Amino acid sequence: IPLSRTVRCFCIKIDDRPIKHRAIGKLEIIPASQSCPRVEIIATMKRTEEKRCLNPESEAIKSLVKSVSKKRSKRA
Amino acid sequence: IPLSRTVRCFCIKIDDRPIKHRAIGKLEIIPASQSCPRVEIIATMKRTEEKRCLNPESEAIKSLVKSVSKKRSKRA
Repeated sequence: IPLSRTVRCFCIKIDDRPIKHRAIGKLEIIPASQSCPRVEIIATMKRTEEKRCLNPESEAIKSLVKSVSKKRSKRA
Repeated sequence: IPLSRTVRCFCIKIDDRPIKHRAIGKLEIIPASQSCPRVEIIATMKRTEEKRCLNPESEAIKSLVKSVSKKRSKRA
């Protein structure tokens, strides 16, 4: 029996609910690696500290990452 | 004496050394907030787990965030 690589992804399930820029306290991006074959994007909510796994392939999430990376937070 | 808001930023100093996509284990984006008035982008290096504060206004870092968020890691 060959040794198998253990897959250790943080996200079990993608949360597809809409997410507000202003509610995000932190965004973590974990690139694909040998321990997890897909990129993971995890948002930590500001108020509740709840963690949500976002869909890296969604256009809305791509814009979110872009907007969160900008100098000032948007009010929209 | 009025109560002053405590500024708590993670980054003290921006690390301007070039950074390789493939060497990054995690990228954290912390939006501007009441505790820190600027957006912070922190890379955790894969091998050493060293944390580096990146410049959110640099074009190279903007492309890095974009490329790290993509499904598969780039070999370049």
